[in-house]
Amino acid sequence: MDNLNEKRLEQDDIFDSYFKNLTEKERAVFEGGISMGALFHQFVGTPISMNSKGCLEEAIKSAMENQPFIKKALININLEIAENDYVSLTGEMLDVTLIVGKEKEYKIRLNYIPELNYPLMYVED
Amino acid sequence: MDNLNEKRLEQDDIFDSYFKNLTEKERAVFEGGISMGALFHQFVGTPISMNSKGCLEEAIKSAMENQPFIKKALININLEIAENDYVSLTGEMLDVTLIVGKEKEYKIRLNYIPELNYPLMYVED
Amino acid sequence: MDNLNEKRLEQDDIFDSYFKNLTEKERAVFEGGISMGALFHQFVGTPISMNSKGCLEEAIKSAMENQPFIKKALININLEIAENDYVSLTGEMLDVTLIVGKEKEYKIRLNYIPELNYPLMYVED
Amino acid sequence: MDNLNEKRLEQDDIFDSYFKNLTEKERAVFEGGISMGALFHQFVGTPISMNSKGCLEEAIKSAMENQPFIKKALININLEIAENDYVSLTGEMLDVTLIVGKEKEYKIRLNYIPELNYPLMYVED
Repeated sequence: MDNLNEKRLEQDDIFDSYFKNLTEKERAVFEGGISMGALFHQFVGTPISMNSKGCLEEAIKSAMENQPFIKKALININLEIAENDYVSLTGEMLDVTLIVGKEKEYKIRLNYIPELNYPLMYVED
Repeated sequence: MDNLNEKRLEQDDIFDSYFKNLTEKERAVFEGGISMGALFHQFVGTPISMNSKGCLEEAIKSAMENQPFIKKALININLEIAENDYVSLTGEMLDVTLIVGKEKEYKIRLNYIPELNYPLMYVED
Repeated sequence: MDNLNEKRLEQDDIFDSYFKNLTEKERAVFEGGISMGALFHQFVGTPISMNSKGCLEEAIKSAMENQPFIKKALININLEIAENDYVSLTGEMLDVTLIVGKEKEYKIRLNYIPELNYPLMYVED
Repeated sequence: MDNLNEKRLEQDDIFDSYFKNLTEKERAVFEGGISMGALFHQFVGTPISMNSKGCLEEAIKSAMENQPFIKKALININLEIAENDYVSLTGEMLDVTLIVGKEKEYKIRLNYIPELNYPLMYVED
C-alpha cells in the first residue's frame, strides 16, 4: 500500500470517529438534511425560464450527486410561465428527492405542501 | 377557541403527520442538518473584517435562533487579520454549535478539523 | 521603501490598468452595481424577526463598508411582523443606499418601487 | 391598443425614468456589474466535478441570458481534478464574458488575474 492510500485510510478513520454516536438512519437523515438546506440556499433566487428549466434541474442534480452521501437525486422544477418570461427560482417550485444512505436507502424530500402553503423538507417512507 | 387558533391547530397536525416516522433524535439531527447546511451557504462569502466580526456573529446567531427547532446558537468566527484588512468568510473560519430538540437537547457542531483539513458538521455527545 | 510596499504599488498599477477605459462615474456605477448584486444574493433568504432586524442591518452595513470602493452604506429593512414571528428576508424589504466613488460621490440605490411592484436598483442624483 | 399593453407601456416609462441620468455606457456597466455580482454569489460554492462542469456552465449561461439587459453570456469553468473527485466552485475558476447593452455592446469580464492572484471583474474594450 502506498503512502497516499495509507493517508486516505487514516483520514477515513478520523472522519468515521466523529459519527460513531449515530445510527445508520440518524447519519442518513443528518447528511440528507445538510444537503437539502444547502441546495435550497444555493439555488433559490437563480433566474429561470421555461427554456432554461431543464438545464437548471440537471445542474442541481449533478451538484447533489457529487456529494459522497447522496446516491441519487431527482429534481423537478414546477414552472408554468410564458415562453419569453423569466422569474427567480423559489422554494415553492422545487420538488426534490434525495436518496441517501450506505446500506439501507432513505428518501429525503422537499416539496410544496398546499395545506401548509409551505415547501416542506421531510423523510419519506 | 377562535377560528385562527383552530386553523393553527389543524396546520400543526398536518405538519406533525410528516414526521411520525422519525424518533426524537432523528428529527433533531435532520432539522439541525438542514439549518447547518443553510447557514453555511447563506453566510460563507460575506465580506468580513476584525471590526465587523462581532456583528456578523450576532446576525448569524439571530438568524439561527429565529428557527423554531433551534433552542440556542453559539457562533464564533476565527479570524486573525490586520485591523484595516477584509476577507470573505470561509467555512474554515466558522465554529458553530446549534442546540436543537424539544424534550432532549442535541448539539450540532460545525468546526474546522485540522487532521481532516476540513470544516466538519457532526453531532456532539 | 521596503519590498512589501514596492509589491503593493506594483499590484495597484496592474489593478488600475484594467480600469483605464472607464470614466470616474462609469467606474463608480460599475463597482456599485457589483456590490448591490452581491448584497442581494448574499442576504436575501436570511431568517429575520423584529428582534434581529437591527443586527442584520448592521451586519449588511459592515459587509458593504468593508469593500474598498464603498464609502458608506445605509441599510434599512422594512419589516412589520408580530414580535414572535420570523420570515425570510426578501428584496422587497430592502432599502439600501451605497455611497461610492473616490473624488466625487455617487449614490447607488435599491428600494421597492410600488408602481413597478419591484425592488429596483438605480443611481440616484 | 388593449389595456394590458397600455399598462406595460406605462410601466416601461416609469422604469426608464429612473435611468435618465445615465449614458448608455454607464447604464450598461451598471447592469453588467449587478449581474456579475449576483452570478458570483449565486453560483460560487456549488459542488462540481469534471462530469457536471458542462451542465453548470450551461445553467449559469441560461440564468444570465434570462436577464433582459444581457445579450449573450460566455461561461467557462477552469477545472482540472480527477474524474471521481468533486470540489466547490470558486471565483478563481470562473471565466465569464457578459455582452450587455442595447445599441452598442459592452463586454463585462470576470477572470482570474495571476499577477493579482484575484478573480477580477472589469470592462473589456
